[in-house]
Amino acid sequence: MYSPTIQKLIDLFSKFPTVGPRTASRFVFYLMGKNKEEIEEIIKSISILKEKVKICSSCFNTYEGPGLLCNICSDPRRDKSLLCVIANETDLEAIEKIKKYKGFYFILGGTVSTLKKTDIEKLRFRELGQRIKSRPEIQEIILAFNSTSEGEATALYLERILKSFDATQDNPVRITRLGRGLPLGGELEYADEETLSSAFEGRK
Amino acid sequence: MYSPTIQKLIDLFSKFPTVGPRTASRFVFYLMGKNKEEIEEIIKSISILKEKVKICSSCFNTYEGPGLLCNICSDPRRDKSLLCVIANETDLEAIEKIKKYKGFYFILGGTVSTLKKTDIEKLRFRELGQRIKSRPEIQEIILAFNSTSEGEATALYLERILKSFDATQDNPVRITRLGRGLPLGGELEYADEETLSSAFEGRK
Amino acid sequence: MYSPTIQKLIDLFSKFPTVGPRTASRFVFYLMGKNKEEIEEIIKSISILKEKVKICSSCFNTYEGPGLLCNICSDPRRDKSLLCVIANETDLEAIEKIKKYKGFYFILGGTVSTLKKTDIEKLRFRELGQRIKSRPEIQEIILAFNSTSEGEATALYLERILKSFDATQDNPVRITRLGRGLPLGGELEYADEETLSSAFEGRK
Amino acid sequence: MYSPTIQKLIDLFSKFPTVGPRTASRFVFYLMGKNKEEIEEIIKSISILKEKVKICSSCFNTYEGPGLLCNICSDPRRDKSLLCVIANETDLEAIEKIKKYKGFYFILGGTVSTLKKTDIEKLRFRELGQRIKSRPEIQEIILAFNSTSEGEATALYLERILKSFDATQDNPVRITRLGRGLPLGGELEYADEETLSSAFEGRK
Repeated sequence: MYSPTIQKLIDLFSKFPTVGPRTASRFVFYLMGKNKEEIEEIIKSISILKEKVKICSSCFNTYEGPGLLCNICSDPRRDKSLLCVIANETDLEAIEKIKKYKGFYFILGGTVSTLKKTDIEKLRFRELGQRIKSRPEIQEIILAFNSTSEGEATALYLERILKSFDATQDNPVRITRLGRGLPLGGELEYADEETLSSAFEGRK
Repeated sequence: MYSPTIQKLIDLFSKFPTVGPRTASRFVFYLMGKNKEEIEEIIKSISILKEKVKICSSCFNTYEGPGLLCNICSDPRRDKSLLCVIANETDLEAIEKIKKYKGFYFILGGTVSTLKKTDIEKLRFRELGQRIKSRPEIQEIILAFNSTSEGEATALYLERILKSFDATQDNPVRITRLGRGLPLGGELEYADEETLSSAFEGRK
Repeated sequence: MYSPTIQKLIDLFSKFPTVGPRTASRFVFYLMGKNKEEIEEIIKSISILKEKVKICSSCFNTYEGPGLLCNICSDPRRDKSLLCVIANETDLEAIEKIKKYKGFYFILGGTVSTLKKTDIEKLRFRELGQRIKSRPEIQEIILAFNSTSEGEATALYLERILKSFDATQDNPVRITRLGRGLPLGGELEYADEETLSSAFEGRK
Repeated sequence: MYSPTIQKLIDLFSKFPTVGPRTASRFVFYLMGKNKEEIEEIIKSISILKEKVKICSSCFNTYEGPGLLCNICSDPRRDKSLLCVIANETDLEAIEKIKKYKGFYFILGGTVSTLKKTDIEKLRFRELGQRIKSRPEIQEIILAFNSTSEGEATALYLERILKSFDATQDNPVRITRLGRGLPLGGELEYADEETLSSAFEGRK
């Protein structure tokens, strides 16, 4: 029942992650209430996004500025022996926030829910192989995926191809995964058996 | 830690209703993954929004097309004796969906949480007064606000000014509010006392 | 893995409303931590429950003390023209708390989810019929059920039998239901269509 | 408004863990609906609980049958070198369910939220000290508490007293805690920094 221009924008916003038609319509009325300058600011910010922001040729992280590498890949203080493979940019942000990890990253571009060829081809498995081949200094590859079934499937698939690939190399690389266990606030009584099992195995 | 262009857009999206920084960053990476044509489509839809979409001079609903009135205000089949005052466009959509109400609307532009002069001046109380004055055919004004404290405060304030205004008119107008009661799925045991009280009073 | 005596009590507590095995085991360990006197107090309170507490012969509410009627049914100040039919004692408590209703009650004993004969026979439809027949002073019967599908089915079934029964009486009785509408805190935008529709119809 | 006998039982049930007055009243009406035999069964199960169920003199777990030890403490196949200190019986059940841990337990009886003397004296710290002293074969003490602030405080306090105690022994005992990390289903983006940090440290 909305007018065509409004409905069109509702449809576009509805495709944004986590947004449904009701939230999308609130976005549109939010924009209706903004003045010309504010609308211009939003439009400009969107339009320069893909001009200004570049994708790092090494880790596929976003960056701005000169050169072909992002801030992390061009930082000489980072530890060249560590490579952390992650699904998305937001995972990189989450890991950088804890300020514990000093190695490099590789953004796979997502996770595979099934192992269909079309799904696998969307992700950067090929580029990851090239990256590892060209960096003999890598000693550990950390597969840092969500503990969800998609994250698990992706890690398992990666482990398999990295091991077969590793067998042909001179220096074997250690492949690790994030530790499982009780999260902050977790209670034994309500923990699932797999998590509690991991917590026992990982005790220290 | 995001690059300035990304951070700027995250900040802008964070001001959208219901959006926090985490969701805003997901919006930005969603846009990063779109191609030039898709970005253009979004930009164009935003930029023509305020050009194409007009605000009805009578009810302040949005519309497109010729004339000064929206589809509802220019519809001769609507019932001229009824005026439904609502806070926002989304409330109008919700009411139109039930297909029960055949009168006209007036969009106040929000609700008042306090009765501060600055809050009150942001809403269209003055325009509502003019509308009512110019339409002697109105017999019932329905104050259709949320049952929240803001909605209640706004309805109370409106009732007060409409009554004092009405005293100076020839034809007294009936002022009504939406019925309170148990919603679909509501249980007596978990209903608050006010709702249950209304449900008893409104039995039929 | 619990010992048989503990497991037996867990099984019994698991049948209590809203209690699952995990909560039931917490109940048992709570009791294990109580001393002899505290256990005795609980046991005694349970054992005298059905001795001391009687069921009102008129409305099926619980009461203590002399006579065959509960405090409400024996209260001469209550309004004899009103009868409120409810599913359970907890609904009676909820209604009494609002202090608006001054008539009598009839506790049906539950709701019917299907209209199976075995389901219907568990409830006090027969006793309700006798009650109404013996009280010609009743002018309104309020069917105060939850707005759930079970509550609706029960109200519909009751309406049907009460109407056919009413046709044979000299004084027709008014049969009403609780008002539907927005509950306290309800918002138009999130209300289901049926609730919003009722709120419009029930406006005042 | 409930009768005294009902209210008394509601009050008693309201003290059960997780139970509020509303649930307690549902328990009472549930019991009202049971027949004499069913009530007897519940009463009997409660009354024999503390007669039949014994508390293990070694680990403070519950058990039935002859002897002074529970099924676990009297099982010769369990690993004498491991002692797992837990807060409650329900934690023991949770750990036994994963079938990974083959050592012994010690139930502390709760956690300390503050380190007040009165709080500490309610727990079995003294008995734990005696247990460890009398079992020189213990090589590892696992502090298996919830990752909550209470669990953390209790583990910290225990670590401190166990270490000072350990310094006086010939064979130093290893004191461990459950591994922290992402739980099953955990996502990097939504993990708190402490959990993600632990997940990185505990990678393998």
